[in-house]
Amino acid sequence: MSASGSKYKLSKDTADLKYTDILPICPEGLPATREFLLKVVEILLDYIKDESNREEKILDFHHPADMRSLLSLEIPDKGVTLQQLVDDCAVTLKYQVKTGHPRFFNQLSCGLDLVSMAGEWLTATANTNMFTYEIAPVFILMESVILEKMRDIIGWKDGDSILAPGGSISNLYAFLAARHKMFPGYKKNGLHSIKGHLVMFTSDQCHYSVRSCAAVCGLGTDNCVEVPSDKRGRMIPAELERLVIERKSRGDVPFFVNCTSGTTVLGAFDPINEIVDICQKYKLWCHVDAAWGGGLLFSKKYRHPRLSGIERVDSVTWNPHKLMGTLLQCSTVHFKEPGLLISCNQMSAEYLFMQDKLYDVQYDTGDKVIQCGRHNDIFKLWLQWRAKGDEGFEKLMDRLMELSEYMVARIKSMPDKYYLLLEPECVNVSFWYIPTRLRSMQHSTEREAILGKITPVLKGRMMQAGTLMIGYQPEKDTPNFFRNIISSAAVTESDIDFLLAELDRLGHDL
Amino acid sequence: MSASGSKYKLSKDTADLKYTDILPICPEGLPATREFLLKVVEILLDYIKDESNREEKILDFHHPADMRSLLSLEIPDKGVTLQQLVDDCAVTLKYQVKTGHPRFFNQLSCGLDLVSMAGEWLTATANTNMFTYEIAPVFILMESVILEKMRDIIGWKDGDSILAPGGSISNLYAFLAARHKMFPGYKKNGLHSIKGHLVMFTSDQCHYSVRSCAAVCGLGTDNCVEVPSDKRGRMIPAELERLVIERKSRGDVPFFVNCTSGTTVLGAFDPINEIVDICQKYKLWCHVDAAWGGGLLFSKKYRHPRLSGIERVDSVTWNPHKLMGTLLQCSTVHFKEPGLLISCNQMSAEYLFMQDKLYDVQYDTGDKVIQCGRHNDIFKLWLQWRAKGDEGFEKLMDRLMELSEYMVARIKSMPDKYYLLLEPECVNVSFWYIPTRLRSMQHSTEREAILGKITPVLKGRMMQAGTLMIGYQPEKDTPNFFRNIISSAAVTESDIDFLLAELDRLGHDL
Repeated sequence: MSASGSKYKLSKDTADLKYTDILPICPEGLPATREFLLKVVEILLDYIKDESNREEKILDFHHPADMRSLLSLEIPDKGVTLQQLVDDCAVTLKYQVKTGHPRFFNQLSCGLDLVSMAGEWLTATANTNMFTYEIAPVFILMESVILEKMRDIIGWKDGDSILAPGGSISNLYAFLAARHKMFPGYKKNGLHSIKGHLVMFTSDQCHYSVRSCAAVCGLGTDNCVEVPSDKRGRMIPAELERLVIERKSRGDVPFFVNCTSGTTVLGAFDPINEIVDICQKYKLWCHVDAAWGGGLLFSKKYRHPRLSGIERVDSVTWNPHKLMGTLLQCSTVHFKEPGLLISCNQMSAEYLFMQDKLYDVQYDTGDKVIQCGRHNDIFKLWLQWRAKGDEGFEKLMDRLMELSEYMVARIKSMPDKYYLLLEPECVNVSFWYIPTRLRSMQHSTEREAILGKITPVLKGRMMQAGTLMIGYQPEKDTPNFFRNIISSAAVTESDIDFLLAELDRLGHDL
Repeated sequence: MSASGSKYKLSKDTADLKYTDILPICPEGLPATREFLLKVVEILLDYIKDESNREEKILDFHHPADMRSLLSLEIPDKGVTLQQLVDDCAVTLKYQVKTGHPRFFNQLSCGLDLVSMAGEWLTATANTNMFTYEIAPVFILMESVILEKMRDIIGWKDGDSILAPGGSISNLYAFLAARHKMFPGYKKNGLHSIKGHLVMFTSDQCHYSVRSCAAVCGLGTDNCVEVPSDKRGRMIPAELERLVIERKSRGDVPFFVNCTSGTTVLGAFDPINEIVDICQKYKLWCHVDAAWGGGLLFSKKYRHPRLSGIERVDSVTWNPHKLMGTLLQCSTVHFKEPGLLISCNQMSAEYLFMQDKLYDVQYDTGDKVIQCGRHNDIFKLWLQWRAKGDEGFEKLMDRLMELSEYMVARIKSMPDKYYLLLEPECVNVSFWYIPTRLRSMQHSTEREAILGKITPVLKGRMMQAGTLMIGYQPEKDTPNFFRNIISSAAVTESDIDFLLAELDRLGHDL
């Protein structure tokens, strides 16, 4: 990466220094260390400023091969100078996609919560591991406070929880706990200790990590049964019951149902109460994957009916890094029954979890988890929550939903230009943009097929223009359509007006 | 947490503001945003300064219940002010254990590499997810460059790799790939598609995540066979072969051998070449868990014989966040065969990995992994490597080993006060401190039993004093002993002299 012409200049004395001239290697290196770090912070503050500026582009798109030639990513034999490292940071951010830009609607995680970010800076500096109280006392206590609070919001007075590296691993934890609870011999003897195939159920709209569990854990994806969903993407309980009965009649062993609260594409909420009724009838573990929709638990207005009945289930995945805007990554999984996590995952590593320590070792969480070491994902959430209070998260949820309703209303007011696929239950707004030539055409599967081809082209134009980012995908028989996500606190009504106008500007001639 | 008397004061105009008064919610909030973030940075810079100061304590120990009453961890209904958030940061660090202090020898990950930390600050600000090139173009290319380079160091010209959230998940990836390669029907049909029990082998000194794999993936821990190790903690190849034959004769299906390069407690290196010979003879997958010892691949002096033969194995776990000092977390897993990761883990989520995108989609890594979303763990390693160059990592490895040799020599020079358990192969130095009353006693299992009881008491005194941190554990029949780790670039010979003297000061009367 080129150092020439950088606007971020270290002083003459510091610029040519190397990593060996600063802390921790060089004890006299404190002034240079400070200067170097503050220069990096200056770059970061400028990035934050630009990211908030609607006149700035979201990205400067280049194809992979071109991008590679624009950058100098190679590692030299001998290390580069501090000035070069500063320039490396600046160039990296120049070509990074501004995921916190108010017009970035592309992912479930959008936006940049600056309090949470300050928390992550501190986390980096503290650089500790979460397996024992011994080396992370404050953070371990914060986990305990926050996870108890989240269980309380779910509706549980007891239970246990853990932070995991993403919703997929959280769902895996739920699967493992369910298997362990229902077949305690499994841990020692494995799948062969059970007669018949274990079978799990999930809607055809679920996150793909649920199917991945079946592959990872040895069931095989054929034993992850996809339950049909209705037109709005919600699991059909009668279909679930039918499929459970069918598998039982084959001699299989149904044991786990995944219920999605906020599907990835359509933002649908499976009917929890009806699904729990079936689980209780057939003695199945009920897990709710609320990685996406969990944030709505804060909202008196939107919690019901979407998440009604969640207190009745056995486990819940809930990702603060999605709707709540906590920095990536922050994912949690909660269990109604206390003690299960440890009996399921404990391997009793004697070198970490000795019982003869100075302090009460119930705070050592490492033996509950499959990762051993864990990144500190709690501080950024704790600090953010301190800043917002419960009230702040409720306001954020209501605001994101209100903006989505505004977008739906705007789309409906221009039926010639935009086609809404369904009334959303979450902040996912699914629609097609209709270019001029198709506006007089009757809506039909034929028109959908054409729109499905136009959508990726329009997305390509967006990325080239750098003014807007919205995701798209096909879904079952429906060809490519846009899925707009409003999960950034930076978004306003005017950004939605811009979004719709910009699509028209970029795509009217397609 | 109390705001009174804080030395980190925001200006009067800013102190009482809330998160709603700064970016991204308040567009006019840039000055307050900058002031707030710079105040947090001031706290972090002071922490870094204190952490490098040998006169400062490593920790201010309090028992969990006392610590909780010292802090105010509760979340209020309404959010707190910016000044309170600043104070929260300061108090959190006041009670955090300084893992980068030159006298913190407690964990495999010690030290704070400040270039890597700058990288992690940038990573937080960029706040993106690693599943697609679309939203992480520069970081995805960096992964490609760095992982290729690491494979090259292992000795492979081709192959594939991925970053995972810790060594345990990296080992899980290896297990999954092995199973998929050898039993491709597994993904779809599960364990029941195979006759007989799948069996894996690992030494009795291995990391507990290997056994955890057997539980998670449905084999059961009984089908994770522990191979005896020799006195220095290295797997005995003849025992491996004997156990493989024994399990085969029972009708079981041996398929996977884990070979540890740098065991957690003793730092032992299993003899790779001899183990690979056996794997080839019986057609078993050979995985090397070099999470700990992988860094020594950089060293011409120490690579051989410890890691000789690593280029012959099928997969390798290697954690830069350990010996290389990259910030937590940074773990990698490498495969000799290209294409295996994707065919093993692909679930083809259409909403993320569409084939009709604007760019070459081979750069979208998300479908290779079981996590879906991934934290950006590459930038902190890339920037650190740019700073050091290959040469810098080699020097670091040689220096850490040299310091460990210095410690061993010092211990041997004072046989009355310290007892060395074995000649280490890595930076793990295993020893007992011998208090005055036991110095005249013949070394025997009886004395070991007494030392095993003294060790945790001495560790407790260390933590109360806050001047030193060293881990301890029992191991097989050997009672509690200290395992000292030198993996921080901040350590010097004088810190080792201090360590030995401090143990004597704190423990002579035990």
